[in-house]
Amino acid sequence: MQTVTQISQVRTEVANARKSGQSIGFVPTMGALHAGHISLIETAARDCDFVVVSVFVNPTQFGANEDLEKYPRNLERDVEICAKAGANLVFAPAINEMYPEQNLTWVDVDKITTRLCGQYRPDHFRGVTTVCAKLFNIVTPDIAYFGQKDAQQSVVIKKMVADLNMPLKIEVCPTVREVSGLAISSRNQYLTEEEKQDAKLIYAALKKCSQLAKQGEQNCEILIKEMKIVLAASSKLMPQYIKIVNPKTLADLETLIDGAIAAIAAIAAKPGKTRLIDNIIISTPT
Amino acid sequence: MQTVTQISQVRTEVANARKSGQSIGFVPTMGALHAGHISLIETAARDCDFVVVSVFVNPTQFGANEDLEKYPRNLERDVEICAKAGANLVFAPAINEMYPEQNLTWVDVDKITTRLCGQYRPDHFRGVTTVCAKLFNIVTPDIAYFGQKDAQQSVVIKKMVADLNMPLKIEVCPTVREVSGLAISSRNQYLTEEEKQDAKLIYAALKKCSQLAKQGEQNCEILIKEMKIVLAASSKLMPQYIKIVNPKTLADLETLIDGAIAAIAAIAAKPGKTRLIDNIIISTPT
Repeated sequence: MQTVTQISQVRTEVANARKSGQSIGFVPTMGALHAGHISLIETAARDCDFVVVSVFVNPTQFGANEDLEKYPRNLERDVEICAKAGANLVFAPAINEMYPEQNLTWVDVDKITTRLCGQYRPDHFRGVTTVCAKLFNIVTPDIAYFGQKDAQQSVVIKKMVADLNMPLKIEVCPTVREVSGLAISSRNQYLTEEEKQDAKLIYAALKKCSQLAKQGEQNCEILIKEMKIVLAASSKLMPQYIKIVNPKTLADLETLIDGAIAAIAAIAAKPGKTRLIDNIIISTPT
Repeated sequence: MQTVTQISQVRTEVANARKSGQSIGFVPTMGALHAGHISLIETAARDCDFVVVSVFVNPTQFGANEDLEKYPRNLERDVEICAKAGANLVFAPAINEMYPEQNLTWVDVDKITTRLCGQYRPDHFRGVTTVCAKLFNIVTPDIAYFGQKDAQQSVVIKKMVADLNMPLKIEVCPTVREVSGLAISSRNQYLTEEEKQDAKLIYAALKKCSQLAKQGEQNCEILIKEMKIVLAASSKLMPQYIKIVNPKTLADLETLIDGAIAAIAAIAAKPGKTRLIDNIIISTPT
Protein backbone atom coordinates (compact mmCIF):
# COMPACT_ATOMS: atom_id res chain seq x y z
CA MET A 1 0.00 0.00 0.00
CA GLN A 2 1.20 3.45 -0.91
CA THR A 3 0.61 6.80 0.82
CA VAL A 4 0.65 9.94 -1.32
CA THR A 5 0.07 13.62 -0.66
CA GLN A 6 -0.28 15.03 -4.18
CA ILE A 7 -3.38 15.05 -6.38
CA SER A 8 -1.24 14.24 -9.43
CA GLN A 9 0.02 11.09 -7.69
CA VAL A 10 -3.53 9.91 -7.06
CA ARG A 11 -4.42 10.52 -10.70
CA THR A 12 -1.38 8.52 -11.86
CA GLU A 13 -2.06 5.57 -9.54
CA VAL A 14 -5.77 5.45 -10.39
CA ALA A 15 -5.02 5.73 -14.13
CA ASN A 16 -2.61 2.79 -13.82
CA ALA A 17 -5.21 0.71 -11.96
CA ARG A 18 -7.81 1.54 -14.60
CA LYS A 19 -5.44 0.64 -17.41
CA SER A 20 -5.15 -2.86 -16.02
CA GLY A 21 -8.96 -3.06 -15.90
CA GLN A 22 -9.36 -2.59 -12.16
CA SER A 23 -12.47 -1.06 -10.57
CA ILE A 24 -11.91 1.80 -8.11
CA GLY A 25 -13.44 1.98 -4.63
CA PHE A 26 -13.14 5.11 -2.51
CA VAL A 27 -13.55 5.80 1.20
CA PRO A 28 -13.30 9.51 2.05
CA THR A 29 -12.38 10.08 5.71
CA MET A 30 -11.14 12.76 8.07
CA GLY A 31 -8.74 10.22 9.60
CA ALA A 32 -8.89 9.17 13.27
CA LEU A 33 -9.97 5.88 11.78
CA HIS A 34 -12.11 3.52 13.83
CA ALA A 35 -14.12 0.32 13.37
CA GLY A 36 -16.72 2.21 11.32
CA HIS A 37 -14.13 3.30 8.76
CA ILE A 38 -12.54 -0.16 8.80
CA SER A 39 -15.86 -1.71 7.82
CA LEU A 40 -16.16 0.78 4.93
CA ILE A 41 -12.63 -0.01 3.71
CA GLU A 42 -13.20 -3.75 4.03
CA THR A 43 -16.47 -3.50 2.11
CA ALA A 44 -14.71 -1.47 -0.60
CA ALA A 45 -11.90 -4.03 -0.76
CA ARG A 46 -14.45 -6.82 -1.13
CA ASP A 47 -16.34 -5.00 -3.95
CA CYS A 48 -13.53 -3.22 -5.83
CA ASP A 49 -10.08 -4.07 -7.17
CA PHE A 50 -8.31 -0.88 -6.12
CA VAL A 51 -9.28 0.96 -2.93
CA VAL A 52 -8.36 4.57 -2.24
CA VAL A 53 -8.80 6.06 1.25
CA SER A 54 -8.49 9.81 1.68
CA VAL A 55 -7.43 11.22 5.05
CA PHE A 56 -8.18 14.94 5.11
CA VAL A 57 -9.57 17.06 7.91
CA ASN A 58 -11.53 19.39 5.67
CA PRO A 59 -11.63 22.89 7.16
CA THR A 60 -14.58 24.07 5.07
CA GLN A 61 -17.03 21.73 6.80
CA PHE A 62 -16.26 23.00 10.31
CA GLY A 63 -18.17 25.94 11.75
CA ALA A 64 -16.32 28.86 13.35
CA ASN A 65 -16.90 27.52 16.88
CA GLU A 66 -16.42 23.86 16.09
CA ASP A 67 -13.56 21.45 16.79
CA LEU A 68 -11.35 21.89 13.69
CA GLU A 69 -8.23 22.55 15.77
CA LYS A 70 -8.66 19.74 18.25
CA TYR A 71 -10.07 17.17 15.80
CA PRO A 72 -7.97 14.00 16.39
CA ARG A 73 -5.12 13.46 13.89
CA ASN A 74 -2.80 10.47 13.74
CA LEU A 75 -1.78 9.71 10.17
CA GLU A 76 0.74 7.01 11.02
CA ARG A 77 -1.88 4.95 12.85
CA ASP A 78 -4.47 5.66 10.12
CA VAL A 79 -2.10 4.41 7.42
CA GLU A 80 -1.53 1.16 9.33
CA ILE A 81 -5.27 0.66 9.71
CA CYS A 82 -5.83 1.28 5.98
CA ALA A 83 -3.18 -1.26 5.03
CA LYS A 84 -4.67 -3.92 7.32
CA ALA A 85 -8.20 -3.26 6.08
CA GLY A 86 -7.17 -3.80 2.46
CA ALA A 87 -6.68 -0.31 1.01
CA ASN A 88 -4.32 0.13 -1.94
CA LEU A 89 -3.69 3.86 -1.72
CA VAL A 90 -3.94 6.45 1.04
CA PHE A 91 -4.32 10.06 -0.09
CA ALA A 92 -3.36 12.40 2.74
CA PRO A 93 -3.11 15.90 1.25
CA ALA A 94 -2.13 19.09 3.04
CA ILE A 95 -4.73 21.87 3.12
CA ASN A 96 -2.73 23.75 0.47
CA GLU A 97 -2.94 20.82 -1.92
CA MET A 98 -6.74 20.76 -1.67
CA TYR A 99 -7.23 24.55 -1.53
CA PRO A 100 -4.19 26.03 -3.34
CA GLU A 101 -5.86 29.37 -4.04
CA GLN A 102 -8.91 31.15 -2.70
CA ASN A 103 -11.79 28.73 -3.22
CA LEU A 104 -14.76 30.47 -4.86
CA THR A 105 -16.71 27.40 -5.92
CA TRP A 106 -19.29 25.67 -3.74
CA VAL A 107 -21.52 22.74 -4.45
CA ASP A 108 -24.74 23.50 -2.63
CA VAL A 109 -27.63 21.12 -2.08
CA ASP A 110 -30.78 23.00 -1.15
CA LYS A 111 -33.55 22.04 1.27
CA ILE A 112 -32.31 18.68 2.60
CA THR A 113 -29.19 20.38 3.97
CA THR A 114 -31.26 22.80 6.07
CA ARG A 115 -32.93 20.01 8.06
CA LEU A 116 -31.64 17.94 11.03
CA CYS A 117 -27.97 18.86 11.59
CA GLY A 118 -28.23 21.63 8.99
CA GLN A 119 -30.18 23.76 11.45
CA TYR A 120 -27.29 23.67 13.91
CA ARG A 121 -24.36 23.58 11.48
CA PRO A 122 -25.35 26.06 8.74
CA ASP A 123 -22.33 25.75 6.41
CA HIS A 124 -21.38 22.18 7.28
CA PHE A 125 -22.99 20.37 4.35
CA ARG A 126 -21.76 22.91 1.82
CA GLY A 127 -18.24 22.05 2.99
CA VAL A 128 -18.96 18.32 2.82
CA THR A 129 -20.50 18.36 -0.65
CA THR A 130 -17.78 20.63 -2.02
CA VAL A 131 -14.90 18.54 -0.69
CA CYS A 132 -16.61 15.31 -1.80
CA ALA A 133 -17.09 16.74 -5.30
CA LYS A 134 -13.37 17.62 -5.32
CA LEU A 135 -12.33 14.19 -4.03
CA PHE A 136 -14.63 12.39 -6.47
CA ASN A 137 -13.04 14.38 -9.31
CA ILE A 138 -9.56 13.50 -8.06
CA VAL A 139 -10.12 9.79 -7.35
CA THR A 140 -12.81 9.17 -10.05
CA PRO A 141 -14.10 6.07 -8.21
CA ASP A 142 -16.71 3.62 -9.43
CA ILE A 143 -18.13 3.37 -5.91
CA ALA A 144 -17.71 5.65 -2.88
CA TYR A 145 -18.53 4.36 0.59
CA PHE A 146 -20.24 6.27 3.39
CA GLY A 147 -21.53 5.25 6.82
CA GLN A 148 -25.20 5.19 7.76
CA LYS A 149 -24.24 6.91 11.04
CA ASP A 150 -24.08 10.20 9.13
CA ALA A 151 -27.51 9.57 7.62
CA GLN A 152 -28.11 13.11 6.42
CA GLN A 153 -24.66 13.25 4.82
CA SER A 154 -25.45 10.10 2.82
CA VAL A 155 -28.79 11.47 1.65
CA VAL A 156 -27.19 14.78 0.66
CA ILE A 157 -24.26 13.14 -1.16
CA LYS A 158 -26.62 10.79 -3.03
CA LYS A 159 -28.74 13.75 -4.13
CA MET A 160 -25.65 15.65 -5.26
CA VAL A 161 -24.41 12.67 -7.27
CA ALA A 162 -27.84 12.22 -8.89
CA ASP A 163 -28.41 15.93 -9.63
CA LEU A 164 -24.93 16.49 -11.07
CA ASN A 165 -24.83 13.15 -12.96
CA MET A 166 -21.57 12.24 -11.25
CA PRO A 167 -20.34 8.97 -12.75
CA LEU A 168 -20.14 6.91 -9.56
CA LYS A 169 -22.31 4.90 -7.17
CA ILE A 170 -22.76 5.76 -3.50
CA GLU A 171 -22.82 2.78 -1.13
CA VAL A 172 -24.08 3.37 2.40
CA CYS A 173 -22.83 0.85 4.98
CA PRO A 174 -24.40 0.01 8.36
CA THR A 175 -23.38 1.91 11.48
CA VAL A 176 -20.78 0.10 13.58
CA ARG A 177 -21.50 0.19 17.32
CA GLU A 178 -19.74 -0.49 20.57
CA VAL A 179 -21.11 -3.39 22.64
CA SER A 180 -23.06 -0.78 24.59
CA GLY A 181 -24.84 0.29 21.40
CA LEU A 182 -23.02 3.63 21.17
CA ALA A 183 -22.36 4.46 17.52
CA ILE A 184 -18.61 4.54 16.91
CA SER A 185 -17.36 8.03 16.07
CA SER A 186 -14.00 9.78 16.06
CA ARG A 187 -15.55 12.28 18.45
CA ASN A 188 -16.17 9.55 21.07
CA GLN A 189 -12.53 10.18 22.06
CA TYR A 190 -13.66 13.44 23.62
CA LEU A 191 -16.07 11.70 26.04
CA THR A 192 -15.41 11.11 29.75
CA GLU A 193 -16.47 7.73 31.18
CA GLU A 194 -19.57 9.29 32.66
CA GLU A 195 -20.48 10.98 29.39
CA LYS A 196 -20.06 7.64 27.62
CA GLN A 197 -22.60 6.10 29.97
CA ASP A 198 -25.09 8.86 29.15
CA ALA A 199 -24.33 8.63 25.43
CA LYS A 200 -25.58 5.01 25.36
CA LEU A 201 -29.08 6.35 25.89
CA ILE A 202 -29.09 7.78 22.35
CA TYR A 203 -29.11 4.36 20.72
CA ALA A 204 -31.40 3.00 23.44
CA ALA A 205 -33.94 5.68 22.49
CA LEU A 206 -33.60 4.91 18.77
CA LYS A 207 -34.07 1.19 19.40
CA LYS A 208 -37.16 1.89 21.47
CA CYS A 209 -38.58 3.88 18.56
CA SER A 210 -37.76 1.11 16.09
CA GLN A 211 -39.39 -1.55 18.30
CA LEU A 212 -42.57 0.44 18.81
CA ALA A 213 -42.80 1.04 15.06
CA LYS A 214 -42.36 -2.67 14.39
CA GLN A 215 -45.19 -3.30 16.83
CA GLY A 216 -47.41 -1.02 14.77
CA GLU A 217 -47.10 2.43 16.34
CA GLN A 218 -47.28 4.88 13.41
CA ASN A 219 -47.83 8.17 15.20
CA CYS A 220 -44.54 10.05 15.15
CA GLU A 221 -45.51 12.36 17.98
CA ILE A 222 -45.92 9.32 20.25
CA LEU A 223 -42.69 7.77 18.98
CA ILE A 224 -40.75 10.97 19.63
CA LYS A 225 -42.25 11.23 23.12
CA GLU A 226 -41.08 7.68 23.84
CA MET A 227 -37.55 8.53 22.70
CA LYS A 228 -37.59 11.59 24.94
CA ILE A 229 -38.49 9.44 27.92
CA VAL A 230 -35.50 7.14 27.30
CA LEU A 231 -33.10 10.10 26.91
CA ALA A 232 -34.49 11.71 30.09
CA ALA A 233 -32.88 8.91 32.15
CA SER A 234 -29.83 11.19 32.33
CA SER A 235 -30.25 14.80 33.39
CA LYS A 236 -26.89 15.67 31.82
CA LEU A 237 -27.62 14.45 28.29
CA MET A 238 -28.87 17.46 26.33
CA PRO A 239 -30.81 16.53 23.18
CA GLN A 240 -30.43 18.96 20.26
CA TYR A 241 -33.04 17.29 18.08
CA ILE A 242 -35.14 14.13 18.15
CA LYS A 243 -36.74 13.60 14.76
CA ILE A 244 -38.56 11.10 12.59
CA VAL A 245 -38.10 12.05 8.97
CA ASN A 246 -38.79 10.97 5.42
CA PRO A 247 -35.72 8.95 4.36
CA LYS A 248 -35.32 10.85 1.07
CA THR A 249 -36.49 14.41 1.74
CA LEU A 250 -35.59 14.43 5.47
CA ALA A 251 -38.82 16.34 6.10
CA ASP A 252 -40.55 15.67 9.44
CA LEU A 253 -43.14 12.90 9.31
CA GLU A 254 -46.41 12.92 11.23
CA THR A 255 -47.24 9.30 10.46
CA LEU A 256 -44.93 6.49 9.36
CA ILE A 257 -45.11 5.50 5.71
CA ASP A 258 -45.44 1.72 5.28
CA GLY A 259 -42.34 -0.17 4.23
CA ALA A 260 -38.92 -1.51 5.03
CA ILE A 261 -37.46 2.01 5.02
CA ALA A 262 -40.48 3.85 6.36
CA ALA A 263 -38.49 6.61 8.02
CA ILE A 264 -35.26 7.58 9.69
CA ALA A 265 -35.33 8.32 13.42
CA ALA A 266 -32.44 10.66 14.18
CA ILE A 267 -31.03 12.18 17.35
CA ALA A 268 -28.35 14.78 18.03
CA ALA A 269 -27.45 15.15 21.70
CA LYS A 270 -24.66 16.44 23.91
CA PRO A 271 -23.52 14.40 26.91
CA GLY A 272 -21.30 17.36 27.91
CA LYS A 273 -19.53 19.52 25.35
CA THR A 274 -19.32 16.88 22.62
CA ARG A 275 -22.10 16.76 20.08
CA LEU A 276 -23.06 13.23 19.03
CA ILE A 277 -25.43 12.07 16.32
CA ASP A 278 -27.04 8.73 15.63
CA ASN A 279 -29.99 7.35 13.70
CA ILE A 280 -31.90 4.20 12.91
CA ILE A 281 -33.90 3.09 9.88
CA ILE A 282 -37.51 2.54 10.87
CA SER A 283 -39.59 -0.25 9.31
CA THR A 284 -43.31 -0.82 9.74
CA PRO A 285 -44.78 -4.31 10.41
CA THR A 286 -44.82 -6.46 7.26
CA MET B 1 -21.95 10.68 -36.74
CA GLN B 2 -24.60 9.61 -34.27
CA THR B 3 -27.26 11.69 -32.50
CA VAL B 4 -28.47 10.47 -29.09
CA THR B 5 -30.91 11.80 -26.50
CA GLN B 6 -30.11 9.61 -23.47
CA ILE B 7 -27.31 10.11 -20.94
CA SER B 8 -26.69 6.35 -20.87
CA GLN B 9 -26.08 6.38 -24.64
CA VAL B 10 -23.46 9.11 -24.26
CA ARG B 11 -21.75 7.12 -21.51
CA THR B 12 -21.68 4.00 -23.71
CA GLU B 13 -20.31 5.80 -26.77
CA VAL B 14 -17.66 7.65 -24.78
CA ALA B 15 -16.65 4.46 -22.94
CA ASN B 16 -16.22 2.72 -26.31
CA ALA B 17 -14.11 5.57 -27.65
CA ARG B 18 -11.97 5.50 -24.50
CA LYS B 19 -11.53 1.74 -24.73
CA SER B 20 -9.95 2.16 -28.14
CA GLY B 21 -7.60 4.77 -26.68
CA GLN B 22 -9.33 7.83 -28.11
CA SER B 23 -9.21 11.27 -26.49
CA ILE B 24 -12.55 13.02 -25.94
CA GLY B 25 -13.29 16.61 -26.95
CA PHE B 26 -16.51 18.33 -25.93
CA VAL B 27 -18.36 21.39 -27.21
CA PRO B 28 -21.38 22.29 -25.05
CA THR B 29 -23.92 24.41 -26.96
CA MET B 30 -27.50 25.61 -26.80
CA GLY B 31 -27.89 24.81 -30.50
CA ALA B 32 -28.68 27.45 -33.14
CA LEU B 33 -25.16 26.70 -34.27
CA HIS B 34 -23.20 29.36 -36.12
CA ALA B 35 -19.66 30.00 -37.33
CA GLY B 36 -18.48 30.47 -33.72
CA HIS B 37 -19.64 26.99 -32.74
CA ILE B 38 -18.26 25.54 -35.97
CA SER B 39 -14.82 26.89 -35.13
CA LEU B 40 -15.06 25.27 -31.66
CA ILE B 41 -16.09 21.91 -33.13
CA GLU B 42 -13.36 22.09 -35.79
CA THR B 43 -10.75 22.91 -33.17
CA ALA B 44 -11.99 20.01 -31.02
CA ALA B 45 -11.84 17.69 -34.05
CA ARG B 46 -8.28 18.81 -34.75
CA ASP B 47 -7.15 18.24 -31.12
CA CYS B 48 -9.19 15.18 -30.08
CA ASP B 49 -10.08 11.77 -31.51
CA PHE B 50 -13.75 11.74 -30.53
CA VAL B 51 -15.81 14.94 -30.43
CA VAL B 52 -19.10 15.26 -28.56
CA VAL B 53 -21.37 18.27 -29.13
CA SER B 54 -24.29 18.81 -26.75
CA VAL B 55 -27.33 20.73 -27.96
CA PHE B 56 -29.43 21.70 -24.95
CA VAL B 57 -31.26 24.95 -24.28
CA ASN B 58 -30.69 24.91 -20.54
CA PRO B 59 -33.65 26.49 -18.73
CA THR B 60 -31.77 27.09 -15.46
CA GLN B 61 -29.50 29.72 -17.01
CA PHE B 62 -32.35 31.93 -18.28
CA GLY B 63 -33.82 34.60 -16.05
CA ALA B 64 -37.60 34.89 -15.58
CA ASN B 65 -37.88 37.69 -18.16
CA GLU B 66 -35.35 36.35 -20.62
CA ASP B 67 -35.74 34.66 -23.99
CA LEU B 68 -36.00 30.95 -23.02
CA GLU B 69 -39.21 30.44 -25.01
CA LYS B 70 -38.14 32.21 -28.16
CA TYR B 71 -34.50 31.06 -28.13
CA PRO B 72 -33.86 29.69 -31.66
CA ARG B 73 -34.08 25.88 -31.98
CA ASN B 74 -33.37 23.84 -35.12
CA LEU B 75 -31.91 20.45 -34.23
CA GLU B 76 -31.96 19.05 -37.76
CA ARG B 77 -29.82 21.91 -39.06
CA ASP B 78 -27.56 21.75 -35.96
CA VAL B 79 -26.93 18.02 -36.51
CA GLU B 80 -25.92 18.66 -40.13
CA ILE B 81 -23.53 21.39 -39.04
CA CYS B 82 -21.98 19.13 -36.38
CA ALA B 83 -21.42 16.35 -38.90
CA LYS B 84 -19.75 18.70 -41.39
CA ALA B 85 -17.55 20.26 -38.70
CA GLY B 86 -16.21 16.87 -37.63
CA ALA B 87 -18.23 15.89 -34.56
CA ASN B 88 -18.63 12.20 -33.73
CA LEU B 89 -21.62 12.38 -31.41
CA VAL B 90 -24.43 14.89 -30.85
CA PHE B 91 -26.14 14.74 -27.47
CA ALA B 92 -29.54 16.44 -27.67
CA PRO B 93 -31.39 15.60 -24.45
CA ALA B 94 -34.92 16.62 -23.50
CA ILE B 95 -35.29 18.75 -20.37
CA ASN B 96 -36.57 15.69 -18.49
CA GLU B 97 -33.43 13.75 -19.27
CA MET B 98 -31.24 16.48 -17.78
CA TYR B 99 -33.56 17.36 -14.88
CA PRO B 100 -35.57 14.17 -14.18
CA GLU B 101 -36.53 15.19 -10.64
CA GLN B 102 -36.50 18.44 -8.71
CA ASN B 103 -32.94 19.71 -8.94
CA LEU B 104 -31.62 20.73 -5.52
CA THR B 105 -27.92 20.90 -6.34
CA TRP B 106 -26.19 24.02 -7.61
CA VAL B 107 -22.58 24.68 -8.41
CA ASP B 108 -21.98 28.25 -7.38
CA VAL B 109 -18.90 30.32 -8.14
CA ASP B 110 -18.71 33.37 -5.86
CA LYS B 111 -17.48 36.89 -6.62
CA ILE B 112 -16.53 36.60 -10.31
CA THR B 113 -20.14 35.70 -11.17
CA THR B 114 -21.45 38.92 -9.60
CA ARG B 115 -19.46 41.17 -11.93
CA LEU B 116 -20.12 42.23 -15.57
CA CYS B 117 -23.17 40.26 -16.80
CA GLY B 118 -23.75 38.86 -13.31
CA GLN B 119 -25.10 42.22 -12.20
CA TYR B 120 -27.83 42.06 -14.83
CA ARG B 121 -28.45 38.30 -14.91
CA PRO B 122 -28.34 37.28 -11.23
CA ASP B 123 -28.89 33.48 -11.55
CA HIS B 124 -27.43 33.07 -15.02
CA PHE B 125 -23.97 31.80 -14.10
CA ARG B 126 -25.31 29.42 -11.46
CA GLY B 127 -27.33 27.80 -14.23
CA VAL B 128 -24.32 27.71 -16.55
CA THR B 129 -21.90 26.23 -14.02
CA THR B 130 -24.44 23.67 -12.85
CA VAL B 131 -25.33 22.45 -16.33
CA CYS B 132 -21.65 22.40 -17.36
CA ALA B 133 -20.78 20.34 -14.26
CA LYS B 134 -23.58 17.93 -15.24
CA LEU B 135 -22.46 17.77 -18.87
CA PHE B 136 -18.80 17.32 -17.89
CA ASN B 137 -19.84 14.41 -15.65
CA ILE B 138 -21.87 12.87 -18.48
CA VAL B 139 -19.35 13.33 -21.29
CA THR B 140 -16.14 13.11 -19.15
CA PRO B 141 -14.10 14.93 -21.81
CA ASP B 142 -10.36 15.51 -21.80
CA ILE B 143 -10.88 19.01 -23.21
CA ALA B 144 -14.00 21.21 -23.33
CA TYR B 145 -14.16 24.15 -25.74
CA PHE B 146 -15.67 27.57 -25.08
CA GLY B 147 -15.72 30.82 -27.04
CA GLN B 148 -13.92 33.97 -25.98
CA LYS B 149 -17.08 35.92 -26.85
CA ASP B 150 -18.55 34.82 -23.53
CA ALA B 151 -15.44 35.96 -21.69
CA GLN B 152 -16.95 35.90 -18.21
CA GLN B 153 -18.38 32.43 -18.80
CA SER B 154 -14.91 31.13 -19.69
CA VAL B 155 -13.34 32.69 -16.61
CA VAL B 156 -16.10 31.27 -14.38
CA ILE B 157 -15.92 27.78 -15.91
CA LYS B 158 -12.13 27.74 -15.60
CA LYS B 159 -12.38 28.71 -11.94
CA MET B 160 -15.00 26.01 -11.31
CA VAL B 161 -12.83 23.36 -12.98
CA ALA B 162 -9.78 24.43 -10.95
CA ASP B 163 -11.61 24.72 -7.61
CA LEU B 164 -13.43 21.40 -7.97
CA ASN B 165 -10.42 19.56 -9.45
CA MET B 166 -12.48 18.50 -12.45
CA PRO B 167 -10.34 16.19 -14.58
CA LEU B 168 -10.48 18.14 -17.84
CA LYS B 169 -8.90 21.10 -19.59
CA ILE B 170 -10.82 24.18 -20.71
CA GLU B 171 -9.81 25.59 -24.09
CA VAL B 172 -10.99 29.09 -24.97
CA CYS B 173 -11.17 29.83 -28.70
CA PRO B 174 -11.14 33.25 -30.41
CA THR B 175 -14.39 35.07 -31.12
CA VAL B 176 -15.63 34.62 -34.67
CA ARG B 177 -16.91 37.85 -36.26
CA GLU B 178 -18.90 38.96 -39.24
CA VAL B 179 -17.03 41.05 -41.83
CA SER B 180 -18.49 44.11 -40.08
CA GLY B 181 -16.77 43.09 -36.84
CA LEU B 182 -20.01 42.08 -35.10
CA ALA B 183 -19.36 39.07 -32.88
CA ILE B 184 -21.37 36.11 -34.15
CA SER B 185 -24.10 35.08 -31.73
CA SER B 186 -27.29 33.01 -31.90
CA ARG B 187 -29.09 36.10 -30.67
CA ASN B 188 -28.02 38.11 -33.76
CA GLN B 189 -31.04 36.43 -35.43
CA TYR B 190 -33.25 38.74 -33.37
CA LEU B 191 -31.70 41.92 -34.85
CA THR B 192 -33.33 44.11 -37.52
CA GLU B 193 -31.05 45.48 -40.27
CA GLU B 194 -30.91 48.85 -38.55
CA GLU B 195 -30.07 47.26 -35.20
CA LYS B 196 -27.30 45.28 -36.87
CA GLN B 197 -25.78 48.55 -38.11
CA ASP B 198 -25.81 49.95 -34.59
CA ALA B 199 -24.47 46.68 -33.15
CA LYS B 200 -21.27 47.05 -35.18
CA LEU B 201 -20.32 49.96 -32.94
CA ILE B 202 -19.73 47.55 -30.05
CA TYR B 203 -16.69 45.97 -31.67
CA ALA B 204 -15.60 49.32 -33.07
CA ALA B 205 -15.50 50.67 -29.51
CA LEU B 206 -13.55 47.64 -28.25
CA LYS B 207 -11.03 47.96 -31.08
CA LYS B 208 -10.58 51.66 -30.31
CA CYS B 209 -9.80 50.73 -26.71
CA SER B 210 -7.33 48.04 -27.78
CA GLN B 211 -5.55 50.44 -30.15
CA LEU B 212 -5.23 53.19 -27.57
CA ALA B 213 -3.85 50.67 -25.06
CA LYS B 214 -1.30 49.44 -27.60
CA GLN B 215 -0.27 53.08 -28.10
CA GLY B 216 0.41 53.34 -24.36
CA GLU B 217 -2.81 54.65 -22.81
CA GLN B 218 -3.07 52.96 -19.41
CA ASN B 219 -5.75 55.04 -17.73
CA CYS B 220 -8.95 53.00 -17.78
CA GLU B 221 -11.17 56.00 -17.17
CA ILE B 222 -9.89 57.54 -20.38
CA LEU B 223 -10.18 54.25 -22.29
CA ILE B 224 -13.79 53.81 -21.15
CA LYS B 225 -14.60 57.39 -22.12
CA GLU B 226 -13.20 56.73 -25.62
CA MET B 227 -15.38 53.59 -25.96
CA LYS B 228 -18.43 55.61 -24.89
CA ILE B 229 -17.72 58.16 -27.63
CA VAL B 230 -17.67 55.41 -30.28
CA LEU B 231 -20.91 53.87 -28.99
CA ALA B 232 -22.58 57.29 -28.87
CA ALA B 233 -22.53 57.37 -32.70
CA SER B 234 -25.95 55.73 -32.47
CA SER B 235 -28.61 57.22 -30.24
CA LYS B 236 -30.51 53.92 -30.24
CA LEU B 237 -27.71 51.69 -28.97
CA MET B 238 -28.14 51.48 -25.19
CA PRO B 239 -24.98 50.35 -23.35
CA GLN B 240 -25.57 48.26 -20.22
CA TYR B 241 -21.94 48.23 -19.13
CA ILE B 242 -18.59 49.33 -20.55
CA LYS B 243 -15.80 47.88 -18.44
CA ILE B 244 -12.09 47.23 -18.31
CA VAL B 245 -11.42 44.39 -15.92
CA ASN B 246 -8.72 42.13 -14.54
CA PRO B 247 -8.71 39.05 -16.81
CA LYS B 248 -8.80 36.61 -13.86
CA THR B 249 -10.80 38.30 -11.12
CA LEU B 250 -12.97 40.43 -13.47
CA ALA B 251 -12.62 43.29 -10.99
CA ASP B 252 -12.62 46.81 -12.45
CA LEU B 253 -9.16 48.15 -13.26
CA GLU B 254 -8.05 51.76 -12.82
CA THR B 255 -4.79 51.30 -14.69
CA LEU B 256 -3.78 48.62 -17.16
CA ILE B 257 -1.42 45.95 -15.88
CA ASP B 258 1.55 45.41 -18.25
CA GLY B 259 1.46 42.35 -20.45
CA ALA B 260 -0.02 40.47 -23.34
CA ILE B 261 -3.27 39.89 -21.43
CA ALA B 262 -3.32 43.11 -19.46
CA ALA B 263 -7.10 43.32 -19.23
CA ILE B 264 -10.39 42.46 -20.83
CA ALA B 265 -12.47 45.31 -22.20
CA ALA B 266 -16.11 44.20 -22.18
CA ILE B 267 -19.35 45.73 -23.36
CA ALA B 268 -22.99 44.75 -23.01
CA ALA B 269 -25.40 46.85 -25.07
CA LYS B 270 -28.89 46.75 -26.52
CA PRO B 271 -29.49 47.93 -30.08
CA GLY B 272 -33.24 47.49 -29.44
CA LYS B 273 -34.65 44.68 -27.30
CA THR B 274 -31.78 42.25 -27.89
CA ARG B 275 -28.94 42.26 -25.39
CA LEU B 276 -25.54 41.72 -26.99
CA ILE B 277 -22.15 41.20 -25.36
CA ASP B 278 -18.64 41.38 -26.71
CA ASN B 279 -15.12 41.79 -25.41
CA ILE B 280 -11.51 42.13 -26.44
CA ILE B 281 -8.26 41.15 -24.80
CA ILE B 282 -6.17 44.25 -24.12
CA SER B 283 -2.37 44.19 -24.40
CA THR B 284 0.03 46.92 -23.38
CA PRO B 285 2.99 47.99 -25.61
CA THR B 286 5.84 45.44 -25.47
